[in-house]
Amino acid sequence: MVHQELPVAVDAMGGDAAPDVVIDGARLAVAAGIPVLLVGDPDRSVDPVAARAVAPWVVTREALPMDAGAGAVRAMEGASIRRCLAEVRAGRAVAAVSCGGSGATLVASVIELGLEPHVDRPAIIAALPRADGGTLYLVDAGASVDCRADHLAQFFELGSVWARLMGGALPRVGLLSNGSEGHKGSKVVREAHAMLEGRPGYAGQVEPHAALAGAVDVLVADGFAGNVFLKTAEGMVELLRATFLRELEGDPAARASLPALSGVLAALRVRLDWRSRGGALLVGVTAPVVIGHGRADAVSVGAAIRLAHYAHTSGMVEDVRRALSSGASSSVGSGGPA
Amino acid sequence: MVHQELPVAVDAMGGDAAPDVVIDGARLAVAAGIPVLLVGDPDRSVDPVAARAVAPWVVTREALPMDAGAGAVRAMEGASIRRCLAEVRAGRAVAAVSCGGSGATLVASVIELGLEPHVDRPAIIAALPRADGGTLYLVDAGASVDCRADHLAQFFELGSVWARLMGGALPRVGLLSNGSEGHKGSKVVREAHAMLEGRPGYAGQVEPHAALAGAVDVLVADGFAGNVFLKTAEGMVELLRATFLRELEGDPAARASLPALSGVLAALRVRLDWRSRGGALLVGVTAPVVIGHGRADAVSVGAAIRLAHYAHTSGMVEDVRRALSSGASSSVGSGGPA
Repeated sequence: MVHQELPVAVDAMGGDAAPDVVIDGARLAVAAGIPVLLVGDPDRSVDPVAARAVAPWVVTREALPMDAGAGAVRAMEGASIRRCLAEVRAGRAVAAVSCGGSGATLVASVIELGLEPHVDRPAIIAALPRADGGTLYLVDAGASVDCRADHLAQFFELGSVWARLMGGALPRVGLLSNGSEGHKGSKVVREAHAMLEGRPGYAGQVEPHAALAGAVDVLVADGFAGNVFLKTAEGMVELLRATFLRELEGDPAARASLPALSGVLAALRVRLDWRSRGGALLVGVTAPVVIGHGRADAVSVGAAIRLAHYAHTSGMVEDVRRALSSGASSSVGSGGPA
Repeated sequence: MVHQELPVAVDAMGGDAAPDVVIDGARLAVAAGIPVLLVGDPDRSVDPVAARAVAPWVVTREALPMDAGAGAVRAMEGASIRRCLAEVRAGRAVAAVSCGGSGATLVASVIELGLEPHVDRPAIIAALPRADGGTLYLVDAGASVDCRADHLAQFFELGSVWARLMGGALPRVGLLSNGSEGHKGSKVVREAHAMLEGRPGYAGQVEPHAALAGAVDVLVADGFAGNVFLKTAEGMVELLRATFLRELEGDPAARASLPALSGVLAALRVRLDWRSRGGALLVGVTAPVVIGHGRADAVSVGAAIRLAHYAHTSGMVEDVRRALSSGASSSVGSGGPA
């Protein structure tokens, strides 16, 4: 009997241009050798026959709006995102992807998959570019808004595990703060700093600009500060683009020189446009879930599916379980092996 | 008898290139008609005779290091920043400027000047560029790290007053948050949102990228999240600059086109380099204090002195007092006049 690899379950109804953009993204992933299971309504596609040919479907007619609150997610058991995650829970898929609302995906993931044994709060890991050309993994990018110090210590482990799986031998992990000295930081950050001091890889409190410059590989924050960091970074890219375009308007000579810059500007776009990064990884639940952008295009959806697939094949969930079951005993001690 | 305008007291010893850069900045302010009082050690200048000719001096040989903690600030009563603020307290100067450490300036300001009657926490107002060409006033940019909801409600008043004095008739004031819906935000942000709802000018919870795009004129945050916002914005400008330069390196044709872009790039620099903005305004203490950049150049120091002078002549402290003494009664009510 031939061993059949289990698929990544993909919420076909999530995202501003669902289902067709999601179906196109699934087609790209399948072409790259990743088995996909689509969950949703193929008849909402512009070409239902072609949609059905991309991958097997779990058909459901129900879908949540992008801004669905926790109550709606709990109530609509048949919603595509719930069914998508239920496939993972039932062992018929190994990971899930949705470009629907991140809040809805988070709530649905906790309901359907549950949290890992030693995890008290789920977290979202987002990848950002750094000025030195490296990648910064931000954890938590917005899942758990009000956190205690021990939650941040768990995020330290979650981020370390993922950065190692993404190729960093001994990732440097910093705590997002308003200063690099121990007496800075909010009360919770100072407490977390005291818990983490001495742990291998802990790089202390780090200011946002230092993290973006390359001082650390992983940046730990509660979901509020982490989300502010992420959305400020995104907003600044937009601000710089808008300011650049406005200045160009009044300067015909500068405009005329733009064709020569097209390669540089395209490279900047690839490096800085979050849509080219696939999505963010939800960690702390019992299987990998990738939260794609609501405005994802097909390439971005394909990248999100690849990311979910890699999170599964790399053994991310098992590594998190191991790190936190040993971390659970050391978190009250003097900083044992991470 | 000729009425003599009282000077702005300037800490000559604060900043990486003190005292000479500060003295040069004072010279620019004096040339613009603003009386200045320099506080520090003119003999540490490369040209003590010229330094003494710029403005009157209060001579002190003591100065605090840039990273001085609160204890050092309390202990060194003769430090230039303390003496500078003592001149304001004694009524011999109307406002103060320092490019020394912002933490030291904050602590010294509270010691020497004290807080306004209805202010529980001081705040720093920083001005940032917006994508629509406007200015965003951030309050608090880093003075008061752990805040309660009623502190944020005070910052709402402080920011509104300043934005009005800077030319906004009815400034739109938002609460920095991870979402724009009322159920988002940290516990403290949700509480502050409930306190502020219905107040004139209150624009609700605002996400960082929306604030940078132009959704509000004033952004209210605790000093932790506000500082993360500010330093992420600064870090992204550096990241974009570094990425642009790196991409240019491998692209000779693009490099050759740069001269045509020089006007656009210079305009971007003026708009986005925080050093061109003079400094941030400390509010909530009994007189205006401007915290200049540690790496300020002379033009930036001059702008900081002008900012302090304007904060005095515009009646900022009196307006804050009025707003908060009426706000103090309405803050527990249903949102009276701001």
